Amino acid sequence: MFERLFVPAEFVEVTSDAAWLAAMLEAERALATASARAGVIPSGAAEAIAAACRPERFDAERLALDGRASGNPAEPLVRALTEAVPDDATAYVHRGATSQDIVDTAAMLVTRRALGLLLDVLDGVADECAALAEEHRSTPMAARTLLQQAVPTTFGLKAAGWLVAVRETRAALARVQEERVAAQLGGAAGTLAAFGDSGLEVKRLFAEEVGLAEPVLAWHADRGRIAELAGALAAVAATLAKIAVDIVLLAQTEVAEVADTGGGGSSTMPHKRNPVGPALAVACARQVHGYASVVAAPGSSEHERGVGGWHSEWHALSGALAYSGGAVDAVRRTLAGLEVHPDRMLENLRASGGEVAAERVSFALAEQLGRRAARELVTEAVARARGHNGRLADELAADDRVELTREQLAAALDPVTYLGSAEALVDEALRSDGR
Amino acid sequence: MFERLFVPAEFVEVTSDAAWLAAMLEAERALATASARAGVIPSGAAEAIAAACRPERFDAERLALDGRASGNPAEPLVRALTEAVPDDATAYVHRGATSQDIVDTAAMLVTRRALGLLLDVLDGVADECAALAEEHRSTPMAARTLLQQAVPTTFGLKAAGWLVAVRETRAALARVQEERVAAQLGGAAGTLAAFGDSGLEVKRLFAEEVGLAEPVLAWHADRGRIAELAGALAAVAATLAKIAVDIVLLAQTEVAEVADTGGGGSSTMPHKRNPVGPALAVACARQVHGYASVVAAPGSSEHERGVGGWHSEWHALSGALAYSGGAVDAVRRTLAGLEVHPDRMLENLRASGGEVAAERVSFALAEQLGRRAARELVTEAVARARGHNGRLADELAADDRVELTREQLAAALDPVTYLGSAEALVDEALRSDGR
Amino acid sequence: MFERLFVPAEFVEVTSDAAWLAAMLEAERALATASARAGVIPSGAAEAIAAACRPERFDAERLALDGRASGNPAEPLVRALTEAVPDDATAYVHRGATSQDIVDTAAMLVTRRALGLLLDVLDGVADECAALAEEHRSTPMAARTLLQQAVPTTFGLKAAGWLVAVRETRAALARVQEERVAAQLGGAAGTLAAFGDSGLEVKRLFAEEVGLAEPVLAWHADRGRIAELAGALAAVAATLAKIAVDIVLLAQTEVAEVADTGGGGSSTMPHKRNPVGPALAVACARQVHGYASVVAAPGSSEHERGVGGWHSEWHALSGALAYSGGAVDAVRRTLAGLEVHPDRMLENLRASGGEVAAERVSFALAEQLGRRAARELVTEAVARARGHNGRLADELAADDRVELTREQLAAALDPVTYLGSAEALVDEALRSDGR
Amino acid sequence: MFERLFVPAEFVEVTSDAAWLAAMLEAERALATASARAGVIPSGAAEAIAAACRPERFDAERLALDGRASGNPAEPLVRALTEAVPDDATAYVHRGATSQDIVDTAAMLVTRRALGLLLDVLDGVADECAALAEEHRSTPMAARTLLQQAVPTTFGLKAAGWLVAVRETRAALARVQEERVAAQLGGAAGTLAAFGDSGLEVKRLFAEEVGLAEPVLAWHADRGRIAELAGALAAVAATLAKIAVDIVLLAQTEVAEVADTGGGGSSTMPHKRNPVGPALAVACARQVHGYASVVAAPGSSEHERGVGGWHSEWHALSGALAYSGGAVDAVRRTLAGLEVHPDRMLENLRASGGEVAAERVSFALAEQLGRRAARELVTEAVARARGHNGRLADELAADDRVELTREQLAAALDPVTYLGSAEALVDEALRSDGR
Repeated sequence: MFERLFVPAEFVEVTSDAAWLAAMLEAERALATASARAGVIPSGAAEAIAAACRPERFDAERLALDGRASGNPAEPLVRALTEAVPDDATAYVHRGATSQDIVDTAAMLVTRRALGLLLDVLDGVADECAALAEEHRSTPMAARTLLQQAVPTTFGLKAAGWLVAVRETRAALARVQEERVAAQLGGAAGTLAAFGDSGLEVKRLFAEEVGLAEPVLAWHADRGRIAELAGALAAVAATLAKIAVDIVLLAQTEVAEVADTGGGGSSTMPHKRNPVGPALAVACARQVHGYASVVAAPGSSEHERGVGGWHSEWHALSGALAYSGGAVDAVRRTLAGLEVHPDRMLENLRASGGEVAAERVSFALAEQLGRRAARELVTEAVARARGHNGRLADELAADDRVELTREQLAAALDPVTYLGSAEALVDEALRSDGR
Repeated sequence: MFERLFVPAEFVEVTSDAAWLAAMLEAERALATASARAGVIPSGAAEAIAAACRPERFDAERLALDGRASGNPAEPLVRALTEAVPDDATAYVHRGATSQDIVDTAAMLVTRRALGLLLDVLDGVADECAALAEEHRSTPMAARTLLQQAVPTTFGLKAAGWLVAVRETRAALARVQEERVAAQLGGAAGTLAAFGDSGLEVKRLFAEEVGLAEPVLAWHADRGRIAELAGALAAVAATLAKIAVDIVLLAQTEVAEVADTGGGGSSTMPHKRNPVGPALAVACARQVHGYASVVAAPGSSEHERGVGGWHSEWHALSGALAYSGGAVDAVRRTLAGLEVHPDRMLENLRASGGEVAAERVSFALAEQLGRRAARELVTEAVARARGHNGRLADELAADDRVELTREQLAAALDPVTYLGSAEALVDEALRSDGR
Repeated sequence: MFERLFVPAEFVEVTSDAAWLAAMLEAERALATASARAGVIPSGAAEAIAAACRPERFDAERLALDGRASGNPAEPLVRALTEAVPDDATAYVHRGATSQDIVDTAAMLVTRRALGLLLDVLDGVADECAALAEEHRSTPMAARTLLQQAVPTTFGLKAAGWLVAVRETRAALARVQEERVAAQLGGAAGTLAAFGDSGLEVKRLFAEEVGLAEPVLAWHADRGRIAELAGALAAVAATLAKIAVDIVLLAQTEVAEVADTGGGGSSTMPHKRNPVGPALAVACARQVHGYASVVAAPGSSEHERGVGGWHSEWHALSGALAYSGGAVDAVRRTLAGLEVHPDRMLENLRASGGEVAAERVSFALAEQLGRRAARELVTEAVARARGHNGRLADELAADDRVELTREQLAAALDPVTYLGSAEALVDEALRSDGR
Repeated sequence: MFERLFVPAEFVEVTSDAAWLAAMLEAERALATASARAGVIPSGAAEAIAAACRPERFDAERLALDGRASGNPAEPLVRALTEAVPDDATAYVHRGATSQDIVDTAAMLVTRRALGLLLDVLDGVADECAALAEEHRSTPMAARTLLQQAVPTTFGLKAAGWLVAVRETRAALARVQEERVAAQLGGAAGTLAAFGDSGLEVKRLFAEEVGLAEPVLAWHADRGRIAELAGALAAVAATLAKIAVDIVLLAQTEVAEVADTGGGGSSTMPHKRNPVGPALAVACARQVHGYASVVAAPGSSEHERGVGGWHSEWHALSGALAYSGGAVDAVRRTLAGLEVHPDRMLENLRASGGEVAAERVSFALAEQLGRRAARELVTEAVARARGHNGRLADELAADDRVELTREQLAAALDPVTYLGSAEALVDEALRSDGR
């Protein structure tokens, strides 16, 4: 429902029925051209076929409806294409290919284009993360584990974490784009039988014509590359969802460390500024996960062409690409409009009266008292301080076992000086490339 | 891609953007009417709003695009609806509701209609199964376990198995339709605050107006009913896929016990008659499984309205309904055009020279020799018979330990008389109603 | 890994290999007894078999290892059981059944016991929710949508929402327990052939003996009931995860409206009190979702017994039951130790200076100015107030279009009086029973 | 249930609680050693800690039970380890690390070892496939699409298809092993704060000590590498399931082109030889798909350490590794015991009287009659031949439009000469390496 609410126009376009139709025609054209180059069919026939492969002549919805009888859209397309060429070329239309050669090659053409867009927008996301990491390299904030304040970090390191996650999952997707997005040509069952002795040559030329990698064998019933593609999309989408959730959590009314300036209004509450981009990103990521699960599910690639497994890929793959586009676009827009509130970060960090640096005091005391005793001492002091809204430093100072002065305690509990290697790590992250 | 290849027109229609738009308007109308009935808004305003709730005035694609800013399609709809009513009624548009009230109620209206269709076509499937069960109550065929011939059964019992599976998963779906497809009205966060003292009354009247069950509380962040719906759809779809796979296996070239007369042609092989209906059914079932997984995934229904979990349901629920429709339609058509070949069933059953009734001989011998010895004797006889293409009866007769005569052996190995309670079970199945 | 970290002892026990072994033996015993009652085998043999069906005589791990050759644990069990009975009873061991009859019946016995535990602990969860709902019926707090403060609610209504969600998903699980947990007996391929004319009677008596519902037909290759079971477990687990997440969010350092007194310590940070129970609950729910997905996946229930689909259920079903137990136990413990901080709830609610009741002012102004103008006026006032940390009431009072007095504005913006039907809804929820 | 039925002993071992315990201790040891090398803790303390890190001193089940309170097994391990070292070393136990550093590093150590095994057994599978491809390079058989005989192929090409699929999905898994199996060290929240200025150095040395790749940043809440690992396992498992299903289909009673000599007996039917290995492989693949879905699901990696997402990985990752082991072992054993029946392949291929080469005749006629007319002519001839059990060659010869002689027709319909590039493709596949 309401696909356009989630999927930006350019991703709708490259995964549309029209895009698939154009890609299938490109596959038919490439087949004819490659066959002619290999001397398997007359050049004139190939030219006539290529001339007929114009999307505007065909009706994608009609092909879908007609495809209900044959189980795929290529079979009616071949019939329609046969009608569209001169009589003496009809014998050479689709010659040597099977429907799956056309649909799979089209799927890969659609994929290549969609991945191109995706990788670009992911670069945009990475750039936004890098800019935040650089700008806030030293902006102190509370790190939170299990959603409790843990120790100090910097907002730059948080953004650097997003950056590395995006770059690394992007790298895996780029690898799929480079190595696994391949042409498909095997003929009826992978033997290239209809090309006589020229099978391997036609296969090579066909891949060249469509501009895709040449596979060793037809992969009609070997769907590993599709599973890898789907897996890489799901990993990217999950990474985007993680960023989205972090932003939502930071933007909570009670936390208020960032604001989503692109936030949306409520239909009833005039004060609401909803983190709409993150919500869309999470929704899209869940969708991608579902589609990836469909595509990667074992079963139904029986023998040389399966019964239903292949057929389930078209919709799921299109959907995974489109909703990945939705997720990446939503996160990019959200990051671009993100308002960061360093003052509030500091305020929240200091609110716990030094608890967030309790680890440091604990280490200092451990060298004197041993690990367990030191830890228990600090844990009890925290409990006492919380009990009467007191300060942790006072509780510790009042403990005879603690040999640190008040000044030393105050220094040890100052969160702003307990950033460890946060800044150096930001630098490392900015230098890395995800490989 | 090519949704119409998989989803029949009526299911496309009831899950389309247009159907959602109409359902959202129906929710807005019902809200105004119920509010007026409860005395919360003026009757005149309610009438004006109801009059404006005409789908043809609104543009679903526009709402989706505008919904990108607010994160849902109801917010822009409310704005558009406000434009469409007289000035003095605008204060009462959407009053007291939140976007989710409208979208969720619309989802349930869409669901109710789609389930109505689904349950009907499932009845059609059940009827086809029942007819086959009745007609072939006594048609012997080989039962197959792990795809090896096991013991004899009848095709009627196989069809009866399909029948019971369809009826039972249909019953669970019908229960969801009756009990769990409910209206949604809670206002901004479930308190019905904007209705003053009349909240509970408006909720009751609203459910009455839309004709859906009234929930105890708003279920904005309690998505159990949606998970149950999705689960019931997935169970139905898996059942349909099971029938589809059985038919594909029976229709294999080497088995040929049934033929799918609605089978489709290949784009290259003139002799092929592909089991297209079953392939589509399997593909649809895989899709439904994926969508159900999205909908039922834990997480993202935080507090009073989640961030992304809810948003992921709209597309996934629509998809689950639509592709369930695809599966049920494909199976119904396949069954309606199924050609059954009893002669071939008998031929395949007899091909193993009595092995398929080896269990019966084994039981007979066990009473004399004990379980283990009897079993080993028969297993070895089978191996010898297979080794030199001999007959099992001869091998057994040649074994001194076997005290059965040749006639007794022949009778014991006759598969056609080893049907057990198959026919009585068919009768039981025909009498059952899935509850 | 570390199953016991997630799964409480009683759920480990009822889903253990030992529990499965005992259940398989109970099925063999019931088969012999039912067969004797039907006159199909001698009573003496049945008694001897029943006497031998003692779990301590068998080695579950051995059966698993031996099962690698036959593909299931029942086949080696039958061999071992045959060894354990007197010679003249061996012919009657397992007679008429197939391995799947034993394993499926055992699965249902395991399920019945595990569901019994689950339903009980769910009742405990419901009781905790009900107690919180009752106690905090009128405790004001901020409702949050998309993790932004929305409008006021009460903590009682939030707990009531949990209560209804638990009761409703529990009801679906209870229905499965009552109606779908059935015995399995069909013989080699569902025809009950080895029982001669007594097939239906043995089936009836067998179900009686094991104390499970009697199915119409053998369901060897009709896995709808297993899919429904898994779906119901996943819905329950997702509900529990929702409660867990709500608690984690409320327990955040910056929110602090509840504390998880059972929280766990960190290995390094002495001040941390981690919401461990909720974390375990979420982890378990994710596991259950995965297992349910395995069980409900279409495919691999070919013909009369599938190749792998059935085999994948044993582990997944056990896991789904065990980890459901983990989720429910973790949530029950968390709720039992939940510390609620009404003061902090009120403080957070008031922190936004009335924004959280902006909806009410907007409605009041709408009657005078129309919906759109009223809404824009309030939205702009909110923005101005936020801009200079002012109070919303002042901004509104300064606007000429607002005809409300300062006192009226203050009253309208008081969150504590904008609870709508929250309390009445709590009462409704406490009265409901999930059906 | 009955894990050992599915998972071979070596995979049970490397994913066991004991293996995890040993790996966690190795991580603690490496931390102490690396810290001493960096001068952060005294050498003597590091040596004492290293000496105490002996698995036999600890009780994995105890740690799991104690872990229920802290939410992970590392926290109780640290406590137990602290007890096991001399007093003056306790301050340096686990110093600077967080539980997740230990558990994640342990997960990667477990993974590295399990992947090592997996990649080896996958090589064994590839070797078996290669041997079959080579031996049966020219063994004609029917290719089947949608489970209908399509055109001829060779069994060697089918095996070559398996080979390429195994090698390519193996390559993706090997890439994960090489590039993504990394150490984890970030301290409480990724800043390495407790190491003072030496954080980056300790991180580097720690990775060196455990022998894993060094990540740019801590990946506590960036689970992309885990998602990629799970995805690669699922792709491998799905490939193995595809091989398994092909074998089951070829071994069907009515097809009988291969036999699974390792097949298992039935508990009741003495003649059955069940394809147990393939069934286990399919079951395992379904399990791995489920586990991979859990691990890759978006959500619950909030901020610096998530609430439940991380916790759900341990069991799911162990399970994915173990059941991948089950799948690969089952397929390797099945292939090793596969009996191939070339005579039967030929018999099945010829059974359709040339239909399987109808495509070739259709192409020949198309050059004379045009694509559509040729195709219709052949389709009708096939139908007539089937109608009266006649021969396709006769039907074609009787058609005036067909200008081919009987000899030409017979040659064109001879399946054995219509193998296309099957043999050359086998050679290509044998030469390829999956990259």
